Parts: sequence; structure tokens; C-alpha cells
Amino acid sequence: MERRAFLFSAAVTAAAALRVKGGALLVQGAVDGELGPLLERLDGKKEQRIAAWSFWSGRLGGKQVVVSRTDVGPVNAAAATALGIREFQPSAVINQGTAGGHNRALKLWDIVLGEKTTDYAAFKADHAGTGAGTDTALWRPVPHKIRAGGGEARTFDSFPGDPRLLAAAEKVANPRGKVVRGNIGSAYQYNRQLDHIDWLHRTYGTDSEDMESAYAAGVAVGMGVPFLAIRMISDTEWEHPTFERIAGQHCAEFVIEVIQSV
Amino acid sequence: MERRAFLFSAAVTAAAALRVKGGALLVQGAVDGELGPLLERLDGKKEQRIAAWSFWSGRLGGKQVVVSRTDVGPVNAAAATALGIREFQPSAVINQGTAGGHNRALKLWDIVLGEKTTDYAAFKADHAGTGAGTDTALWRPVPHKIRAGGGEARTFDSFPGDPRLLAAAEKVANPRGKVVRGNIGSAYQYNRQLDHIDWLHRTYGTDSEDMESAYAAGVAVGMGVPFLAIRMISDTEWEHPTFERIAGQHCAEFVIEVIQSV
Repeated sequence: MERRAFLFSAAVTAAAALRVKGGALLVQGAVDGELGPLLERLDGKKEQRIAAWSFWSGRLGGKQVVVSRTDVGPVNAAAATALGIREFQPSAVINQGTAGGHNRALKLWDIVLGEKTTDYAAFKADHAGTGAGTDTALWRPVPHKIRAGGGEARTFDSFPGDPRLLAAAEKVANPRGKVVRGNIGSAYQYNRQLDHIDWLHRTYGTDSEDMESAYAAGVAVGMGVPFLAIRMISDTEWEHPTFERIAGQHCAEFVIEVIQSV
Repeated sequence: MERRAFLFSAAVTAAAALRVKGGALLVQGAVDGELGPLLERLDGKKEQRIAAWSFWSGRLGGKQVVVSRTDVGPVNAAAATALGIREFQPSAVINQGTAGGHNRALKLWDIVLGEKTTDYAAFKADHAGTGAGTDTALWRPVPHKIRAGGGEARTFDSFPGDPRLLAAAEKVANPRGKVVRGNIGSAYQYNRQLDHIDWLHRTYGTDSEDMESAYAAGVAVGMGVPFLAIRMISDTEWEHPTFERIAGQHCAEFVIEVIQSV
């Protein structure tokens, strides 16, 4: 009972905090296929381009929302997040779309909510001489260091998801699969070697792979804005290696319900 | 003679173009050790912080210069570049500092001028089943796609260095080693396996490795600002594996001469 009361109180505080800060919700997708339902539902849509990146402002579910097309990869994701936060001063950022599986417990259409988000391309290798090949046993993950809040740099093995957005998203149903908290991995990679996928899962603890979330998350941390990544599994190399593009649409539909619920 | 006349004319046009655009030169380094001589030489220095990132505006060699401490890695480099360009509307960006060697023709203290700058962490793997291990023979580089100039995305295997800045930098002497045009590689990695370094050099054509240049370059491309990476070799795994921190200071001293010459 106390636990329920605490959670209820936390949820009320969360909603209040999002309102008080006053900014819009910045909702990101890399490609048009991950944005369709969001743009269709955005009332009074107005496009604004900042250099290479497009943003559409409007209302969705009674809230101010800015939909951002980041385009693909770390450069696009980080730049679009920095420019979007600077321009719109959002109350929070949601990065969403499709992901490949790293954790064999996941199935096609499952949704992972980013309790944390991890750059799994970052490592420091130990020395190996000529003839020793490429051996991932010598690769050790390297954390990011960000001056979150200014001042000294803080160390992030992963970037944390906002607990209030996480709690809200967890209450939304996914008609096609599970909704689980997890560690959303990002790199500008498309991994299809099962042993390497297993090594990534063991080494970085990542449950899924996409090309943007962690880079957007790091920038949001640096700019002091709450962040959540939400990804639907569009392919698993061990069971369903075909990329199902429509997962981008399904994920955006789930995210619309999350927006309405916060 | 015609060739010399053409080059002279191009240099004049370059100088005029940099002046006409009117903005300051944005000069980046990841850590204090790569910025020292630049900050010492910056007259009328004024610090401005944008979220997690510091910028110092002033005059150097008769020019408006903004020195930017990006901090380390792709997230910091891309965000600091996007925010720096948005705030200061610079005429050009120079990303500079230390780098490890990928090309065995390079020696400690050599300077590489980024004719191009390449993200060498980007790949797509072919399928491999359980038990097949991690095999880089199945990794194929993936280009970045950036809507440079707005409109449709353009494909970049590497990001080009600005030819006018390149030509100017090439005329500056390095008292400690060579000055060569090359392909400056970036990833959030510290590679020390000789076979893997050789594979990177063969596969991506990279001459050196750092953790920021390519991510800053990609953002500059997306925001339409001329860019050049300048890196001094601070370590080579095959000959001088000890990281020489002072290369950051030497590189900044070289860059001061480049600034004075453009």
C-alpha cells in the first residue's frame, strides 16, 4: 500500500514537473517510416528546418509536441538533438523507432523502454602484435564523459532513461508483444554475426541495437533534458532476420499513447 | 605557370570568401592539453558556456577566433559543433589535436591534414551463425547520409576537408616531423591491436585515429560550414606506443600558424 501511494505520488509529481517546465515534448525518429503516425496526428503542424534537419511543431493529445526527423546515425542524431533542444527548449526528449535484437529473450514486435541507453561502439583495446588478429576479448567498454550540469565531467557507462517517462510508458499496452525495460544499444552498425551479437549483449549488457538513441541521450544529458528511448524489435538475427519496416509505424503508434498518457 | 597563377587566384578567393562570410574561425580541441597555446594567445578572451560546452571568443593573429573545448568522443564533438556553429555562425571550423597512427608510413610528431575525415566505427556485417566468431572480413563500411544543403540526403564515405584551408595549412612548417594530406579517422575507440589497425587502414583508408574529427566534420557538412581536421601523431602502436600528451600542445602551436596564414 505504501509502495502504491509512493508511486502515485511520484506520478503526480512527474506530470506536474513536465507541465511546470512548460516546453514541448520533442519526439524523434530517424526516418519517415518511423514518423508517419506522429505527423498524421499532429494538429496545426508547422515545419521548421534548422540546417539539414526538419522539425514539425503542433499539438498531439492536448500537448505541445515537436516531431523531429533526425535522419540516421550518430552525427545526425547528436546534431538534431542539440539543435532541437536549443531551439525548442523541450521538457523532455523521446527517441523512438525500430531496433534489432541483442537479447535472445526478445521477439519480433516486442518493445524495449530504455531504462538506460548505451553506445556499444566505444572500446579501448589491449595491445596485440602482428599475427594476433582482431580479438574482441581484448576490447573493454569505454564510458562517455559529459559535463552534465556544467562543471566537472561525469562518467556514464550508459545514459539513464527518465524514471517518470519510463513509468508512464510502462503502462501502455503493446498489442503485438511484450513491453520491457531494458538497455537500448546504439552504434552506426548493422550486426548480423550471432557470436558478435552475443558478445555485445554480454559485454555492454545491451538488449537491442539502433543507430541513434545513445547519441541523442548523451546530448540530452549534456543539456539537462529528461530523455527516454523507446524501440520496437524489427528483426532478430537468431529467429527473424528479415527487417520489418512496419515496426517503425507500430512503434510510433505506441509512442502516441505514451504522449497522451504523460 | 598557369597552375601557379590558378593557385594564387584560388588562395585570394579563399581569403576573400572567409572574410566576406564575416564569421569567426571556430577552433576545436577535445581536452585542455590540446587548447593551451590557443587560449594563451587569444586576446580579449571571453568565455561563454552553452549547456555542457565552453567557448572562448577573442582575437588571434588579427582574426576573430572562437576556441571550443568539445570534450572527448562523438556525442560531445557533434553537440559542441552543432551548438558552436548555431551560436557563432563561423566562417570555418578547424578540429585539431592528437591522434594515434593507422598508416605505418607515419611517425610520432607527423601532422596529418584531413583531406578527408572518416568514421571508421560504421559497418554492416554479413550473416554468420553461432560458432563463427567475430570476423571483420564480414564487415563492410557504411557511409553517412546527411541532408547537406537541405533537401535529399547526400552520401559521404568520408567528409571532405575544405580545399582552401588545406592549401593554407600545407604551407605551414612542422619543426618536428612531416606535414601530409591524409584521411583522418575517428571512432570512440583506442586501438592497440596491430592486425586490427592494419585492417582499419586497408578497409577505411584511414591514416590516423582520434575520437572527434569525423563527428565534428559531419555536423559542419550538415550546417554548410567549411571544415578542416588537423592532427599530430601522438603514438604509433608499431613504433612508439606511449601516448605523448605534449603532441596536443605542439599541434595547437601549428594551428596558430595556420590561423595567422588564412
